Amino acid sequence: MVAVVKHGASKQQVEGLIAWFHARGLKTHLSEGEFQTIIGLIGDTTNVDIDLLESLEIVESVKRITEPFKGVNRKFHPDDTVVNIGGLKIGGGSFHIIAGPCSVESSEQISSIAKSVKASGATLLRGGAFKPRTSPYDFQGLRADGIDLLLEAKSMTGLPVVTEIMSATHLPLFENVDVIQVGARNMQNFELLKELGHINKPILLKRGFMNTLTELLMSAEYIMAEGNPNIILCERGIRTFETYTRNTLDLSAVPVLRELTHLPIIIDPSHAIGVSRFVKPMALAAVASGADGLIIEVHNDPPNALCDGAQSLTPEQFADIADRVLRIREVVVSL
Amino acid sequence: MVAVVKHGASKQQVEGLIAWFHARGLKTHLSEGEFQTIIGLIGDTTNVDIDLLESLEIVESVKRITEPFKGVNRKFHPDDTVVNIGGLKIGGGSFHIIAGPCSVESSEQISSIAKSVKASGATLLRGGAFKPRTSPYDFQGLRADGIDLLLEAKSMTGLPVVTEIMSATHLPLFENVDVIQVGARNMQNFELLKELGHINKPILLKRGFMNTLTELLMSAEYIMAEGNPNIILCERGIRTFETYTRNTLDLSAVPVLRELTHLPIIIDPSHAIGVSRFVKPMALAAVASGADGLIIEVHNDPPNALCDGAQSLTPEQFADIADRVLRIREVVVSL
Amino acid sequence: MVAVVKHGASKQQVEGLIAWFHARGLKTHLSEGEFQTIIGLIGDTTNVDIDLLESLEIVESVKRITEPFKGVNRKFHPDDTVVNIGGLKIGGGSFHIIAGPCSVESSEQISSIAKSVKASGATLLRGGAFKPRTSPYDFQGLRADGIDLLLEAKSMTGLPVVTEIMSATHLPLFENVDVIQVGARNMQNFELLKELGHINKPILLKRGFMNTLTELLMSAEYIMAEGNPNIILCERGIRTFETYTRNTLDLSAVPVLRELTHLPIIIDPSHAIGVSRFVKPMALAAVASGADGLIIEVHNDPPNALCDGAQSLTPEQFADIADRVLRIREVVVSL
Amino acid sequence: MVAVVKHGASKQQVEGLIAWFHARGLKTHLSEGEFQTIIGLIGDTTNVDIDLLESLEIVESVKRITEPFKGVNRKFHPDDTVVNIGGLKIGGGSFHIIAGPCSVESSEQISSIAKSVKASGATLLRGGAFKPRTSPYDFQGLRADGIDLLLEAKSMTGLPVVTEIMSATHLPLFENVDVIQVGARNMQNFELLKELGHINKPILLKRGFMNTLTELLMSAEYIMAEGNPNIILCERGIRTFETYTRNTLDLSAVPVLRELTHLPIIIDPSHAIGVSRFVKPMALAAVASGADGLIIEVHNDPPNALCDGAQSLTPEQFADIADRVLRIREVVVSL
Repeated sequence: MVAVVKHGASKQQVEGLIAWFHARGLKTHLSEGEFQTIIGLIGDTTNVDIDLLESLEIVESVKRITEPFKGVNRKFHPDDTVVNIGGLKIGGGSFHIIAGPCSVESSEQISSIAKSVKASGATLLRGGAFKPRTSPYDFQGLRADGIDLLLEAKSMTGLPVVTEIMSATHLPLFENVDVIQVGARNMQNFELLKELGHINKPILLKRGFMNTLTELLMSAEYIMAEGNPNIILCERGIRTFETYTRNTLDLSAVPVLRELTHLPIIIDPSHAIGVSRFVKPMALAAVASGADGLIIEVHNDPPNALCDGAQSLTPEQFADIADRVLRIREVVVSL
Repeated sequence: MVAVVKHGASKQQVEGLIAWFHARGLKTHLSEGEFQTIIGLIGDTTNVDIDLLESLEIVESVKRITEPFKGVNRKFHPDDTVVNIGGLKIGGGSFHIIAGPCSVESSEQISSIAKSVKASGATLLRGGAFKPRTSPYDFQGLRADGIDLLLEAKSMTGLPVVTEIMSATHLPLFENVDVIQVGARNMQNFELLKELGHINKPILLKRGFMNTLTELLMSAEYIMAEGNPNIILCERGIRTFETYTRNTLDLSAVPVLRELTHLPIIIDPSHAIGVSRFVKPMALAAVASGADGLIIEVHNDPPNALCDGAQSLTPEQFADIADRVLRIREVVVSL
Repeated sequence: MVAVVKHGASKQQVEGLIAWFHARGLKTHLSEGEFQTIIGLIGDTTNVDIDLLESLEIVESVKRITEPFKGVNRKFHPDDTVVNIGGLKIGGGSFHIIAGPCSVESSEQISSIAKSVKASGATLLRGGAFKPRTSPYDFQGLRADGIDLLLEAKSMTGLPVVTEIMSATHLPLFENVDVIQVGARNMQNFELLKELGHINKPILLKRGFMNTLTELLMSAEYIMAEGNPNIILCERGIRTFETYTRNTLDLSAVPVLRELTHLPIIIDPSHAIGVSRFVKPMALAAVASGADGLIIEVHNDPPNALCDGAQSLTPEQFADIADRVLRIREVVVSL
Repeated sequence: MVAVVKHGASKQQVEGLIAWFHARGLKTHLSEGEFQTIIGLIGDTTNVDIDLLESLEIVESVKRITEPFKGVNRKFHPDDTVVNIGGLKIGGGSFHIIAGPCSVESSEQISSIAKSVKASGATLLRGGAFKPRTSPYDFQGLRADGIDLLLEAKSMTGLPVVTEIMSATHLPLFENVDVIQVGARNMQNFELLKELGHINKPILLKRGFMNTLTELLMSAEYIMAEGNPNIILCERGIRTFETYTRNTLDLSAVPVLRELTHLPIIIDPSHAIGVSRFVKPMALAAVASGADGLIIEVHNDPPNALCDGAQSLTPEQFADIADRVLRIREVVVSL
């Protein structure tokens, strides 16, 4: 960490600041120029509060040089984390497709989709029970009933299930869920993250649509610092000024996160793009970028459910995508 | 709401879509061009799920023409909402300054600041007890103890208090708090918003740094739809690509929200800009833009607390700002 | 186009507005609700000035329903444009890799790179002669000499050349250049675009790093409206709040542009990501997304040129990427 | 400047990099940690190419600690620059309002507006002759004729005139123009900036809607480095994800630029907000933020020109704004 001292600060003020750093166990390196004085900090700056430091009267700006995260940092843990989901392993060179509907709607729907995506190569089942919606007037999910239906589909197909949590008070309902998802809007719900750090279940942590990769890793650090190392990161699109797509899928997150952290990284092309006919090219791009897996929305298409049926990919479209995804994966990992 | 039908959709598909709209109680207006077919929807489209509609195979795009919010919409409620805080009224032409430290730290600190800001013209006291921090290693606030200290300062000065909630499970601790703040990172924590809709206390709802004004109003709608109309909106800076400031204060939010909603609007220049020496110009700009109030961080400055003491404005700086703010307010409201 | 009339507008004002639309050859459809009056416009709204309309006192907002571009619009020109570069064809199902150094530096450098990238499968040579740099103190390119060296490398290898123009006054220097590139910062230099519309040479138009796809297409429309239909679009990263990468590569631009326009679309992963070790995953992702080609920075690596040599991919790294790119292309286009 | 060396770089590589810095006249400070090696650079790093440095194989990241601009930097030139426009002085404590129509349309229009805004307190006249428009089908301005009409209004009222240039080839037409404006879309048209550095006329440089304050200052540095120090900076809104306003006016630019540079800073609320009924609050906020002046669009309102007449503020509205602006200015500068 480097602190730039404001032009005109007194010698006494600079010494006071240096003493304050020393009291926090840090060594300092002072570089005095004609127009600028810079204090370099050496040691563990993870718990130096950058907001506090920047707000000091005599500090012009602060630049963090080393990352503020530790537990999730590959520098201190070079080997890939492999998240074990009842024997199924995510990370460490494996590749998985998680598929299923946006919302669980009925027993027939979820079971039929589960069977069909399993046949096409999906190895986990997703389905929304608690749905975060911008409008209070939009469908909020089947909630507890949705989880029951999901578990029914799991017992039928053997697929482990992934579903989103929206409040720590709902945790008891998630006892038999295999992977708990934290959605983009809750990525910085720190009280929820702490609670999830106290359990031992795999957590699928989605990047907020306006959050940086550093912030994503800091949120993962919250979970890990409380004791749960089973974290899967998920990029699902960030907000930009482009309006033809719901969000912009940031695939550069894959190689950057691969370098920064040992945690597995999966991509959600469906939510990023928001338009089912554009999911295929983005799914293929995602596997080509080196991701450890995909999470894709798939829906069955009963003839009389005009709207519901068209919300996501059909099982046939999904089968085509899954096939090409696995062929591209071979090109990516070939020597 | 207007739905643009994809080029090449069959007549039968278009009729199916129209029937689906009619089944939802909407009237339609069909405009068929050589290259584009457009369906205009007439009626209450508040509960038409735009994501669902856009994902339909035959729909190219959907444009919302009327706002998706109702309870908070000035069109249906032309008069200003006035939020009553034990006799003190926010909105409807009044102007208030909320001031206090970022975090409550000790009995002496909060009491001393409370007295000093009251003397300079502040009418409410703020202070953080539960602190949302990006890093798990940063100070998380005094939590329940912080609320106790805040209430102590309230009983000493008579200033109503504002403090942030981070989880609905903490609600019992807020029983004697006057205004409950929802922070930027929780603006779309929908489960929390629903809980706050069930109580009758004023809610200070901060705009997320990644959220549009429509989304802010939809979150206010969540609270109001559950029964609590006592909502104060707060702009506190949005994330942009500029890096000299922590966020970018969006003062155009004031006139835009004034037109869209009847709820009072206050501005937080401190968090937006993140640098204490820039708070003054932004506070003056905020009152000039027509806001109903300000929320400003103020800190006392004991000589030996180098860092903590410099975090915010000193009481003397705050007094100068408060004085100019009130003089500018006079220019704004003069005939 | 739909104009929402402000609540409270008089009947006379609404009629005045309708008459004004009729005078511009448009038909109107009036929809009067209790709280909102909407005027739908039917006909060619391409030349309705949306800024002008929005600024009208009685207009609350304006929504464009149909695209404001015409010449580049796939709706009016369903077949792919194929840009012919001396026999080499871009678009219409072909796939090309453009490669070369960021800046042309010397005869040896550009010739050596040209030969090497040709051997690895590149079919066009790129190289910067005029360099747009944020700082006036950074290297501004060899300018006219750079173009001469590029043409020398062309005559040696037969590869057509692509290089950037920064001012219409330099056009005579580009007489023997095969493809003229318009850089991101000049995407809305409308006077330059008009000049490029008067020549018949292929133009590689890069998307501005803060521009929408609609704006990119409007800039292409500027060139086409003046008479030059030979336009290749290029996505090269957009500005977001993420700081680990220089920009964020928006690969969803590929399927979206494919649907909106008949022009070919290529991707520049090098400038988007700005870090050579991350170019490979992004190049693979780009071809998987369905792009018509790539433009990649490649540099030779003489042992004593520490800095210059490391600026881009080495020829060996490029060869590995080119090989995998072509194998992924096969998976994408296979039936 | 600080360079973070990639984990695992060899001692020889680090020494090579250090030697390369020394060869550029810089001193270095090496800080070797267990997991990270950092090289601090001491000396004039203005002309170190950060892109080049970051692209080096062994460099993980580069942080600039000191600003990359010099001529415009307040550190090296503490006193305010005062731009002299035929006796009228901008900067150094003065306050000016520039007013006029978006586009010059006719002799009557521009003369009538000029007289009216002069009467209300404007001291310079603005008017667009060359208009940068996103669409080639929108009105492009009266071009040379527009400048003639503007000069006619100048000779009638004595107001100096400000108008935008779009290409260096038009420079001869601007001989009698008092202040040449560079628009947001040309802020990084570096060839144009260089040409404007060769003349001695005041330049009004608008911030690009996609640019940071550092980039704005680097563009000013382009003009100054070529010899023209007469530069006025102008903030006119930046692109964000908010859609109710055309752009978001970033008023924090005023105090931040005031600290970074000695150049005068004016604000354009009209273009930022894009809706005439919201200009007043933003103009008041702008003066409250401490700006050296405003540039505001004003239009006359002939009864039969429905659209054109409503495009901007009427002279009456402008008079009200100007009056309040000057009263707020008094509060801001009072002791």
